[in-house]
Amino acid sequence: MNKVFTYDSTLRDGGQAQGIALSLKDKLSIAQRLDAFGIDFIEGGFPSSNPKDMAFFEAMRELPLAHAQVVAFGSTRKKGVAARDDEGLAALLESGAPVVAIVGKTWDEQVTRALQAPLEENVAMIADSVAFCKAAGRRVVFDAEHFFDGFAANPDYALACVKAASDAGADSVDLCETNGGALPFQVADVVAAVREALPHTPLGIHCHNDSGCAVANTLAAVGAGATTVQGTIGGIGERTGNTDLLTVIADLELKMGCTCVGPEKLHELTAVAQFVAALCNLSVPANQPYVGSAAFAHKGGLHASAIARFPQAYEHAAPEAVGNRQHMLVSELAGKATLIAKAESLGIGLEGADVQAILDDIKAREAAGYSYEVADGSLALLLRRSLGAYTPSFTLESFRVIVDDYEGSGALAQDAMSEATLKIHVGDQRFVATGEGVGPVGALDTALRLALGQSYPQVAVMELIDYKVRLLDESQGTDAITRVTITTTDGHRTWGTVGVSENVIEASWNALVDSIEYGLLAATES
Amino acid sequence: MNKVFTYDSTLRDGGQAQGIALSLKDKLSIAQRLDAFGIDFIEGGFPSSNPKDMAFFEAMRELPLAHAQVVAFGSTRKKGVAARDDEGLAALLESGAPVVAIVGKTWDEQVTRALQAPLEENVAMIADSVAFCKAAGRRVVFDAEHFFDGFAANPDYALACVKAASDAGADSVDLCETNGGALPFQVADVVAAVREALPHTPLGIHCHNDSGCAVANTLAAVGAGATTVQGTIGGIGERTGNTDLLTVIADLELKMGCTCVGPEKLHELTAVAQFVAALCNLSVPANQPYVGSAAFAHKGGLHASAIARFPQAYEHAAPEAVGNRQHMLVSELAGKATLIAKAESLGIGLEGADVQAILDDIKAREAAGYSYEVADGSLALLLRRSLGAYTPSFTLESFRVIVDDYEGSGALAQDAMSEATLKIHVGDQRFVATGEGVGPVGALDTALRLALGQSYPQVAVMELIDYKVRLLDESQGTDAITRVTITTTDGHRTWGTVGVSENVIEASWNALVDSIEYGLLAATES
Repeated sequence: MNKVFTYDSTLRDGGQAQGIALSLKDKLSIAQRLDAFGIDFIEGGFPSSNPKDMAFFEAMRELPLAHAQVVAFGSTRKKGVAARDDEGLAALLESGAPVVAIVGKTWDEQVTRALQAPLEENVAMIADSVAFCKAAGRRVVFDAEHFFDGFAANPDYALACVKAASDAGADSVDLCETNGGALPFQVADVVAAVREALPHTPLGIHCHNDSGCAVANTLAAVGAGATTVQGTIGGIGERTGNTDLLTVIADLELKMGCTCVGPEKLHELTAVAQFVAALCNLSVPANQPYVGSAAFAHKGGLHASAIARFPQAYEHAAPEAVGNRQHMLVSELAGKATLIAKAESLGIGLEGADVQAILDDIKAREAAGYSYEVADGSLALLLRRSLGAYTPSFTLESFRVIVDDYEGSGALAQDAMSEATLKIHVGDQRFVATGEGVGPVGALDTALRLALGQSYPQVAVMELIDYKVRLLDESQGTDAITRVTITTTDGHRTWGTVGVSENVIEASWNALVDSIEYGLLAATES
Repeated sequence: MNKVFTYDSTLRDGGQAQGIALSLKDKLSIAQRLDAFGIDFIEGGFPSSNPKDMAFFEAMRELPLAHAQVVAFGSTRKKGVAARDDEGLAALLESGAPVVAIVGKTWDEQVTRALQAPLEENVAMIADSVAFCKAAGRRVVFDAEHFFDGFAANPDYALACVKAASDAGADSVDLCETNGGALPFQVADVVAAVREALPHTPLGIHCHNDSGCAVANTLAAVGAGATTVQGTIGGIGERTGNTDLLTVIADLELKMGCTCVGPEKLHELTAVAQFVAALCNLSVPANQPYVGSAAFAHKGGLHASAIARFPQAYEHAAPEAVGNRQHMLVSELAGKATLIAKAESLGIGLEGADVQAILDDIKAREAAGYSYEVADGSLALLLRRSLGAYTPSFTLESFRVIVDDYEGSGALAQDAMSEATLKIHVGDQRFVATGEGVGPVGALDTALRLALGQSYPQVAVMELIDYKVRLLDESQGTDAITRVTITTTDGHRTWGTVGVSENVIEASWNALVDSIEYGLLAATES
């Protein structure tokens, strides 16, 4: 077994990408999912630069992890400041994270021009900072910033920097290809040189995709002796992104004889990609290696018969190994077994049901914009409706939502008010209720709870805890199909539901109805 | 000068991607654009499998190219059929293309299992087909399908196949990594072995991205002696896509000392990416190496001062070399220098202004949820308002939006309708207008254009082309702050604007107002 350690930076470096804004709750969810997947190190943030990151570390102290270790990221001490007086290092320790990553400069010209410090002071900053955190009992990763540019410019100085980190006790020296412009043969040569200079120090690699080679550069580093791979889920990150850790894991496990998460966990690769993307409000690109919906898609006709005769001629890896599946674009061959297993996990038996008809229905809905990946509640309702085993708790007669806004509509004005009036039927009773809210969906939610409260007092304990809006084909402008996903909890269980429409309010209403319906169903059954 | 020939397969293999449907006119436009860019070979299609492709070759005979040669793609002759009687080869010649690419099998097991032919018959099929097309006066490329899997399984047979092509007169033997699962070190080894076995035959390389290494595999092949690189613009292609030819060109030119299109044409790289994406009805992904809008994007503040001191520490290549530009993202970290530079790029001088006060205002807005990274229109308006150099085109008295929905609120129902009534003032005139739409924002947009049309007829040419909704801190449920970004065009210019509110409709309204205001301002100034 050739173990390669996985180091995820989605929550820290991934958060640098344009348009990514993870809430504390999202970050905690991602950390737990990555832990369950078998990631070794989870870099949670930069506690001294961002108070929100400190809140993450505080919350993580209460959250037991099965396998992973949490990493706090920070810089070497400031020039001319003793390590014990440095606020950044203090914040690293205060985070309580068992592992700290200390980034330091290793490119001579960057030290003299950007940092404006003497070369020997930078070496001392590295050594002092590592030693200080080691003395505090932490596992220390030294992130050697710009190492590959630095090594090209002045190999002796670059090596002196990482040697200082190693001598000060760093548990791993991770070489950072900060600019992302290196090519695999260059990375391999440099890592081999460091491997020789520091024969006993574990090495890691951190790459970016500016030359389109982040994955290959990372693999080249492993080939040359690195034993920790840094990256982010889906490669999210600033500019062209970081190394896609999921592709690297699959390549290492399936093609290079290494163990990262192991073959059992590798089945979760596609699910992890989808989970993290959903929380980042992104879609997994269809063409993403291993985990994209098109990664194992084949055109039918000519190819299909050939694939049946000799599948390895058309697939570089078994889609099942990474939890993906072969997509036949003409005839859908896969799917029934998956759906039956999924239904079972929701407590619904599909024995005797027309599973193909249900699959066709799901496919039609997915083509219309539905996504059930994070909407188990809606999927369960859909399955029960298909089985005829379900009577809705209420039916809608009509709703009307009114949003009024007066003057001062400029930026930062928040004086709009919304009002929603609902007419619904529960059995043979009719209920009319009006709810108010800042926004139209909040008003609808209030009205629905009012209208249902007399018949179903348990709606009072259901709380809507997450609400996401995603426009599909955004180039359609305001007529784009809108997908709304809602997460609801009753204090014991949490469930997701989904609604789709060209009208954001109707899409929200659909998701809201499923959320309440599923909650009432769960309450009845438990 | 180390010339590497570029071979574009966007029109043939790229057309295999899901969702790509190029018209004949689109294909001709792309061919002309690639010719002007300096691509050496343009593979236009598979004339025997697709009548539309034959029409392309007919049209190309009338269209003079400055530099490129057109390539028709086809298979070796059928088993047991003489080359002169083979319909596929006849179609290749009939296409009139000066270059033909003949794909043939080189993996023993694929010959026996998929093709169900004797191994020696396959070798004869290759030799006969190449010789036949050479005798007809064409330049011949032999595409060695599945070469890397074939070489791994039976190197002697794989080499015998490409040797047969070479002996029959093939001008280039292009090794195809058909399954896309190889890694760079494997590709380098195999290309080196072929290089040794066929010392005088020019070699090419054709890769796919299934292991995330298409670019690196292509570069590795060049390092081992290949002199033609195949790929598609943007890497479009089935499954995970083909090699992105643009990234390869930039890497070869800027990092490996090779010449593909030359440094002058390299400036067109970003424009070519955008041109082809537009015809394919795709966007260039923001994180695409070299050509994406985020490829050279930097967060402001901390970094901006460092970039100014030492730019090579933050950019692996000069954005100008590939026709892209540095983007300074205005963010909560931005400093004065960044803001002044950004304002200048928007044509606004901040001399004599209280830049710190403007920065504080931007920070307050960013803390409230605004983001100006992709909202230059809103930023320009904000700056002009700060300078007191701006009078709004209109003011709002009030708006009311009503969304009605009746029955059938279940999934897939799309029967909600929206109506918006606006009261606005232009100078001392008051306008009242009502617009309808499927969704509430479309209704507001319609009403606003109606209300403004008499005073500002130019609003008719402004078109809203993109509309994005993002909830910030989504765990706040339906009361989450909503950020709406809108992209608008007047046919000449395109601009982004942003609106923020707890109410999605008000946030949309704010972005919409900025979009129209900025459009009117731009129309006045140009």
